[in-house]
Amino acid sequence: MRCFVSDNAAPVHPAMLQAIADANEGDAVAYGDDPWTQRAIERFREIFGAQTDVYLTYNGTGANLIALSSVLRPYEAVVCADTAHLQTDECAALERFAGSKILPVTAHDGKILPDSIRAIIKNLTEEHHVRPRAISISQSTEFGTVYTLDEIAALCHFAKQHDLLVHMDGARLANAAVALGCSLRAATVELGIDMLTFGGTKNGLMFGEATLFFNPRLHADSARYVRKQATQLASKMRYIAAQFEALLRDDLWARNAAQANAMAKLLERRLSAVPSIRITRPVESNAVFATMPREAIPVLQRHSYFYVFDQALPEVRWMTSFDTTEEDVDAFARLLASELHAA
Amino acid sequence: MRCFVSDNAAPVHPAMLQAIADANEGDAVAYGDDPWTQRAIERFREIFGAQTDVYLTYNGTGANLIALSSVLRPYEAVVCADTAHLQTDECAALERFAGSKILPVTAHDGKILPDSIRAIIKNLTEEHHVRPRAISISQSTEFGTVYTLDEIAALCHFAKQHDLLVHMDGARLANAAVALGCSLRAATVELGIDMLTFGGTKNGLMFGEATLFFNPRLHADSARYVRKQATQLASKMRYIAAQFEALLRDDLWARNAAQANAMAKLLERRLSAVPSIRITRPVESNAVFATMPREAIPVLQRHSYFYVFDQALPEVRWMTSFDTTEEDVDAFARLLASELHAA
Amino acid sequence: MRCFVSDNAAPVHPAMLQAIADANEGDAVAYGDDPWTQRAIERFREIFGAQTDVYLTYNGTGANLIALSSVLRPYEAVVCADTAHLQTDECAALERFAGSKILPVTAHDGKILPDSIRAIIKNLTEEHHVRPRAISISQSTEFGTVYTLDEIAALCHFAKQHDLLVHMDGARLANAAVALGCSLRAATVELGIDMLTFGGTKNGLMFGEATLFFNPRLHADSARYVRKQATQLASKMRYIAAQFEALLRDDLWARNAAQANAMAKLLERRLSAVPSIRITRPVESNAVFATMPREAIPVLQRHSYFYVFDQALPEVRWMTSFDTTEEDVDAFARLLASELHAA
Amino acid sequence: MRCFVSDNAAPVHPAMLQAIADANEGDAVAYGDDPWTQRAIERFREIFGAQTDVYLTYNGTGANLIALSSVLRPYEAVVCADTAHLQTDECAALERFAGSKILPVTAHDGKILPDSIRAIIKNLTEEHHVRPRAISISQSTEFGTVYTLDEIAALCHFAKQHDLLVHMDGARLANAAVALGCSLRAATVELGIDMLTFGGTKNGLMFGEATLFFNPRLHADSARYVRKQATQLASKMRYIAAQFEALLRDDLWARNAAQANAMAKLLERRLSAVPSIRITRPVESNAVFATMPREAIPVLQRHSYFYVFDQALPEVRWMTSFDTTEEDVDAFARLLASELHAA
Repeated sequence: MRCFVSDNAAPVHPAMLQAIADANEGDAVAYGDDPWTQRAIERFREIFGAQTDVYLTYNGTGANLIALSSVLRPYEAVVCADTAHLQTDECAALERFAGSKILPVTAHDGKILPDSIRAIIKNLTEEHHVRPRAISISQSTEFGTVYTLDEIAALCHFAKQHDLLVHMDGARLANAAVALGCSLRAATVELGIDMLTFGGTKNGLMFGEATLFFNPRLHADSARYVRKQATQLASKMRYIAAQFEALLRDDLWARNAAQANAMAKLLERRLSAVPSIRITRPVESNAVFATMPREAIPVLQRHSYFYVFDQALPEVRWMTSFDTTEEDVDAFARLLASELHAA
Repeated sequence: MRCFVSDNAAPVHPAMLQAIADANEGDAVAYGDDPWTQRAIERFREIFGAQTDVYLTYNGTGANLIALSSVLRPYEAVVCADTAHLQTDECAALERFAGSKILPVTAHDGKILPDSIRAIIKNLTEEHHVRPRAISISQSTEFGTVYTLDEIAALCHFAKQHDLLVHMDGARLANAAVALGCSLRAATVELGIDMLTFGGTKNGLMFGEATLFFNPRLHADSARYVRKQATQLASKMRYIAAQFEALLRDDLWARNAAQANAMAKLLERRLSAVPSIRITRPVESNAVFATMPREAIPVLQRHSYFYVFDQALPEVRWMTSFDTTEEDVDAFARLLASELHAA
Repeated sequence: MRCFVSDNAAPVHPAMLQAIADANEGDAVAYGDDPWTQRAIERFREIFGAQTDVYLTYNGTGANLIALSSVLRPYEAVVCADTAHLQTDECAALERFAGSKILPVTAHDGKILPDSIRAIIKNLTEEHHVRPRAISISQSTEFGTVYTLDEIAALCHFAKQHDLLVHMDGARLANAAVALGCSLRAATVELGIDMLTFGGTKNGLMFGEATLFFNPRLHADSARYVRKQATQLASKMRYIAAQFEALLRDDLWARNAAQANAMAKLLERRLSAVPSIRITRPVESNAVFATMPREAIPVLQRHSYFYVFDQALPEVRWMTSFDTTEEDVDAFARLLASELHAA
Repeated sequence: MRCFVSDNAAPVHPAMLQAIADANEGDAVAYGDDPWTQRAIERFREIFGAQTDVYLTYNGTGANLIALSSVLRPYEAVVCADTAHLQTDECAALERFAGSKILPVTAHDGKILPDSIRAIIKNLTEEHHVRPRAISISQSTEFGTVYTLDEIAALCHFAKQHDLLVHMDGARLANAAVALGCSLRAATVELGIDMLTFGGTKNGLMFGEATLFFNPRLHADSARYVRKQATQLASKMRYIAAQFEALLRDDLWARNAAQANAMAKLLERRLSAVPSIRITRPVESNAVFATMPREAIPVLQRHSYFYVFDQALPEVRWMTSFDTTEEDVDAFARLLASELHAA
């Protein structure tokens, strides 16, 4: 039985293993001064624009940390959803490393809007208070929803008006761009995003994310030092770079994400036929949230582990990945139906 | 015209100037190894118990920082009111210095209750999330309200059940204890408080607060290093100590606080007669919060400056201090009535 | 018997107590928005130049922290003497608060020279290493020596060539300027100093130092936030400001320092007649370092406490202050001679 | 032409690629809750003792950071060689993340001895100074030398006497253990080492190091939070764990290191025949340091890049790795001889 616990429970896409094997030839100067890294950076620039500054990293918490720490001073704050990974799942890495405060805003299905940000940043103009300097949004969100292009454009417009930068935590940007039917550039830099965490690990890589800056003046040369201090500078960087080359070649990123998204929609359809399950969030990328009878949860978890997001309801989460198949979804849906029927 | 902007706008109580002058005799080894400091510490121990560990500091942000940083590890969090000074007015000093995250809880008139804390700390058991380790409450609160002894006892009981420490930001503890009609010890250590910021500056001192630990095992010998690193170790410490001796002698702390509290009640009575003013918070210590016609605010501020706490309503704050007199209150109330009548 | 342990063991100069008493009239908005602070800042600008940006603080560790943290990023380093207060006596406050590394350089009698700095900063051009960004020198030094104007000019020239800023820890700048016979401006900004810690506490104040920036573009508006985060923002700031007004009026700073310096020279003369004492450092400001028979130290310390700086030799330190008198020096010298003779 | 710039310029050992491919089957719960990670931890415990607590990480700077940050408080310091990677090549990651100060001791060929540590830690007993809490040594050292077992035992003995912990940066521990002809346990825990960074990347892994604690009481449960905050918690951890399983199976770690060491000795022999080259450090593991004519360096670097460690002499470094062959060494030695002869 496949596991729908998270897209990072999936194995590595075969193209990544092939890219790694292909890169495993001869010596390469460490820390990114190698042809694979240079080619990966070049590929990112083709996609996002020639001005893009690219820093390959190990993981997403690290990539977020570099994106924000490179531009924030310790008395400057970042505004994000109270449900953002940055706020809830990074164990105060930003606070500890950068000193900066996070100002959480009440989110709806993972999204925040200019009005709620406006409410929190007003009056923060004296040294008694932190100074808001950036907004961070997750695309797709931690609830599997996807900001529309208009919503992001509005956030970026608001940000520019208030001298705020906009960071996108794109751990699952591929899923969002596929859902929106637009290019990666149209989903980010063209809307006014300043810094991007571009996810790889949740979309088929073994390890590897990238921090992108779309305006090099923003961070000057901070980012390379910050990546080192944040312990995110890989010595054998070619093995991250080679995977990104493979991911960005022939739109593999989009095909992987499309499969994950399609399987989430299929799971939603299958579950909509199960009476005791109620889908709780719009299924717009590769996550399905639902309520279900409490007593059935541990029984199901024994077959196929997944997380309970809100014990009170209870609300659970299932995630699909690039290698989820129709058979996987059908088998899981059958299991659910049968266990719930039995219960 | 007296200014009701804050109790730290007041001058220094004459007894403090006298204590300073008396201490200004001969040499004294710096950094607290002097008789004044030893006597002040002894006096604190008489009041709060012989186990009390005392660290004199310059100011309240520093004292809070020492209280919390000495016991928290950087991955441990402190829960407090979303309106607490610690959360809103210390410019992320704790986050920067200690790395620790603050988990704000929605407060009512500045107070938080066990139930809302329970909701925020549940599920925080894995390394993806910070680990709650302390609760911080302000007594009296930033809205001039005062926790009852039962409310604090309940918070401390809840804390012990969940292996949490309780810190009291007592920048205005004197005002609270007087309002509660109990001793300082009954208002703190007897209820289960673990760490206390004992305020001096807002109660007549020129400068000086104290961080008190009621359980020496808690911080081992961290606190003396933390005070130094936090730049709160005063070289000529005798001049802080001498003021605390004066404040704690013959209950001067209580007389000062009683005067401030009484004047706030008087101001409340005077303003209750002004039709366009509505008192918005229970007046329990030395602050009066009220709504008033927006257009009158700048006019009044020109006569006697004060803060607007919530621009939306608008809600304003007036504070009294140890040296506020009936004449001051009457004059200010007359000014308000006359300006509002004119408007 | 007077104590020669340190200039911060001295009491407060009477003019400071008077200034405090004079300032103790009526209300004043807290945190520096008061006429005393504005006048003190104005006075600093008259002395150091109209471009000077001034931040009053509680103590010297705090003032150094603000000077450096406002301009350094966490991956940037400061070079200083291995004997500097910043390196040896601030308990890693800078490392903890700012993240920045200190690169200590071997000093001679407390001084460092361009050549030894050049050796340490070369090759530090990649992100594996911190990036040198500032030099910090103490004037006068921790060994009571005084950099000549030429020595400082050479350091500043070297710094500009290497894109380094120069910070002066002037906890005892008054003593140095008096020793050099030049104005405060000639001793600092005219030589190319960028940031200055201007000491008050060791020259007669009860508490109070100032961080000065001579080039406002350097720190933009960081410093006011950094002072708050560093817990160095005094609420009743008028009482620091009033003392600085008094110190800077009619050259009281110079008279105080001149007295201290003169008494150190007198002590040097008196001790040069004692056979078993050898003066170990040039006596150029208000400190006298010497070796003496080890067994006599505890005996003397019982009469008049002082520090042993180097247990191996042993080398001890005696310091004079604004209120040291000829009688004090003579009495102490007699005590030394008598105890050493007896030994 | 092979490159002798560093052992992290080498490709990945084939056994690692095989282990990764074998692990690429089905789902695995992320963040280490998977069978591969459990097996790798078990294997570490077989080697180092059942009490060993194991944290897999991405890289060595991260592993060092976790080892030290989990046990140090921000006012506690670590003593290490002035040439240690921790001091010179980690860009103040420890200072920024942990706040702790590093106290560098003059090293000889990369080694430090108890006497020089004793000199630096004495007198550090007050809160003005950081409190020494740990010693960190590199084994093998950054100069390719190897501490004898007696030298390490003496350091550990000294440490216990002074209540100091001992951390070993074992990025190249395999090379050292092979050189010493002893087991990994005999080279570490049996000597009294408390925390170990066990290197993988420089010995054939694609990525992966491990932080080991030999006394679980030391760090309580800090380490798992610290790893998360330090951005070193890998989501698809099975791919690090599978590599460690392969490295630790059938002593592959020792065979890899033995090959690297042997090739360094061969290179030393070959170069000893070249007149203008002088070997400057004992060749005890997999590094060769030498002086050579300055003008020949850039010529050689064009053929095969390497680092100049000391521009003044100039002193250069060549490193061998698990996949260096006799033919590689011979070809490089011939190139050197020919270029130097031509020069």
